Amino acid sequence: MSAIYNFSAGPAVLPKEVLQQAAAEMLDWHGSGMSVMEMSHRGPEFMSIHEAALTDFRELLAVPENYKILFLQGGGLGENAIVPMNLVGRIASSVQPATVDFVITGSWTKKSAKEAAKYAKVNIAATAEDNKFSAIPDPASWKLSQDAAYVHICTNETIDGLEYQFVPEVGDVPLVADMSSHIMARPVDVSRYGAIFGGAQKNLGPAGLTVVIVREDLLGHALPICPTAFEWKTVAENNSMYNTPPTYAIYIAGLVFQWLKRAGGVQAMEQRNIAKSAMLYDYLDSTGFYQNRVVRECRSRMNVPFYLRDETLNTAFLAGAKEHGLLQLKGHKSVGGMRASLYNAMPVEGVHALISYMKDFEARNG
Amino acid sequence: MSAIYNFSAGPAVLPKEVLQQAAAEMLDWHGSGMSVMEMSHRGPEFMSIHEAALTDFRELLAVPENYKILFLQGGGLGENAIVPMNLVGRIASSVQPATVDFVITGSWTKKSAKEAAKYAKVNIAATAEDNKFSAIPDPASWKLSQDAAYVHICTNETIDGLEYQFVPEVGDVPLVADMSSHIMARPVDVSRYGAIFGGAQKNLGPAGLTVVIVREDLLGHALPICPTAFEWKTVAENNSMYNTPPTYAIYIAGLVFQWLKRAGGVQAMEQRNIAKSAMLYDYLDSTGFYQNRVVRECRSRMNVPFYLRDETLNTAFLAGAKEHGLLQLKGHKSVGGMRASLYNAMPVEGVHALISYMKDFEARNG
Repeated sequence: MSAIYNFSAGPAVLPKEVLQQAAAEMLDWHGSGMSVMEMSHRGPEFMSIHEAALTDFRELLAVPENYKILFLQGGGLGENAIVPMNLVGRIASSVQPATVDFVITGSWTKKSAKEAAKYAKVNIAATAEDNKFSAIPDPASWKLSQDAAYVHICTNETIDGLEYQFVPEVGDVPLVADMSSHIMARPVDVSRYGAIFGGAQKNLGPAGLTVVIVREDLLGHALPICPTAFEWKTVAENNSMYNTPPTYAIYIAGLVFQWLKRAGGVQAMEQRNIAKSAMLYDYLDSTGFYQNRVVRECRSRMNVPFYLRDETLNTAFLAGAKEHGLLQLKGHKSVGGMRASLYNAMPVEGVHALISYMKDFEARNG
Repeated sequence: MSAIYNFSAGPAVLPKEVLQQAAAEMLDWHGSGMSVMEMSHRGPEFMSIHEAALTDFRELLAVPENYKILFLQGGGLGENAIVPMNLVGRIASSVQPATVDFVITGSWTKKSAKEAAKYAKVNIAATAEDNKFSAIPDPASWKLSQDAAYVHICTNETIDGLEYQFVPEVGDVPLVADMSSHIMARPVDVSRYGAIFGGAQKNLGPAGLTVVIVREDLLGHALPICPTAFEWKTVAENNSMYNTPPTYAIYIAGLVFQWLKRAGGVQAMEQRNIAKSAMLYDYLDSTGFYQNRVVRECRSRMNVPFYLRDETLNTAFLAGAKEHGLLQLKGHKSVGGMRASLYNAMPVEGVHALISYMKDFEARNG
């Protein structure tokens, strides 16, 4: 078989160099006689891995000093509860729950809003449901609350393929962003956000690690019912070691961060990601055989959903793709169709191979 | 350097064969062209890994059909909140919180009880604090509540080195056991428990995976404030795929389960663990130079804390041990001294090497 290209939306492709290093170090990390999996999280060996990962993450995303970086568990869906449990206490009183504002742009913000309603009054400030999730609602139309605990957005909707190309202005209210599926894919002005969170399993590393970046003044307001293991202040005070962290996932993420630094950081990634996604969108726009339904200025560089005009060909398309080493192209079950995820670790050759196969499939079936 | 033996209390030593297989399969699992870390959790490749792990776990521990096995995140400390959030709803009313009974036998049950108090009225049915955690309180002395939502015990206290050698009789009230540090080290009559939980990072695999075994009739009683990602019923209905599971940790645990089956299962492990721990305890009892403070019938087969009579020798003891390839023997910071964890993956040769070093150190310093 020729080269394999894995377009999974997550868990997703990792840099080959990272996997090679992990394999080589599996039984004996740096002469320690131990696998990273076997190390006490409090021993000097793992502590050095942990510190390097934190330092590299801070450097790569230029995280300001007044922000904490937390390594947690539970993924994006876990954070859907953990975020409000940590933030609504700033505003909630014993008689009145806090309000939180949501901007609905796809499946992820819908899920997040539903979960937040367990802990707060949810105000849908705007929704893309009316345009069938083809465009991010114009910020001028957002109906933000007066005294929201925070405004929640998802800056890249993995399923629907929408990505913010701007940072909305929400005044003094903390802006909270779910960046699970494009974190480290482009520079971010962290100072514009109160908190940023993301599951690692797209651009950072293996599933089972969740990263939270939070401004220090937002710590210490958790609801009493927030589990201590997920209370950001406690986690921050214990340098993400309040409970045993997912050590191996942190190690792999650390190797990914080193790879990112060697590859030129998030600035270089952004250029690559613009180029890769433009190639695919340009081809999609050039043919009626396939279709992407998102307006041009809201299209995701990471997740490109597309549909065959004749959906009876879906099975044949996927089978042929697999024969050509193009894996995991099936769209999310809730929206159907196809989806090509073009994360940092997807080489440009993978996009070439995909487009070449798509053209060929079109020529044979168009 | 001679052979390395890693006595860490967790994350802990893993079977060498498991690490060798993981290294060999790192870049290409079974000809799939993908690392296990890169697989969609919903694809056929990972689904087969997940199902095999569940099936092997059920077989190894003889889990009855009316119990669900859940793969979660958050570790034992996470479960300290997740357990009450899932179970007190059976009893709690809007006007009165439920009562839960705790038997305190060491650091872990103390932490668990403190966390449960966020969600329930905690009744300390018995505590080993009076005997300085040297013995499990006689069940005849336990002051159980009339209508507790459940009774919580920790069947192996990792820090203090106490292990239950019996299953307490608590009537119709569900018995909940934290088995983090001895699960799969001995047969368990699961039917005597309402729920069992444990972090994976001692006997099952890498940190970042938590296993819960729960009787089906106890599902569906979560408090409304329980995060959906940690609601056992939702997790069970989605076969632990409600959110992206820690896929690589599940894969490694699955390899450990296969290793356990090849090695004769938990029955064989129990015989090995009895033999390994008896060797070390017999030596400790034969000398005044070292001391274990737990009464004989409550001693853990997994975690053997011990103290040097002359604690000024601690640093020299640890440095010499490391020179001999005997790693991570330092006791938990809260209790000091030394601790040798003898999990399933610790070969008997490691215990021989430890005792040999201890005798030699005694001869030179006694």
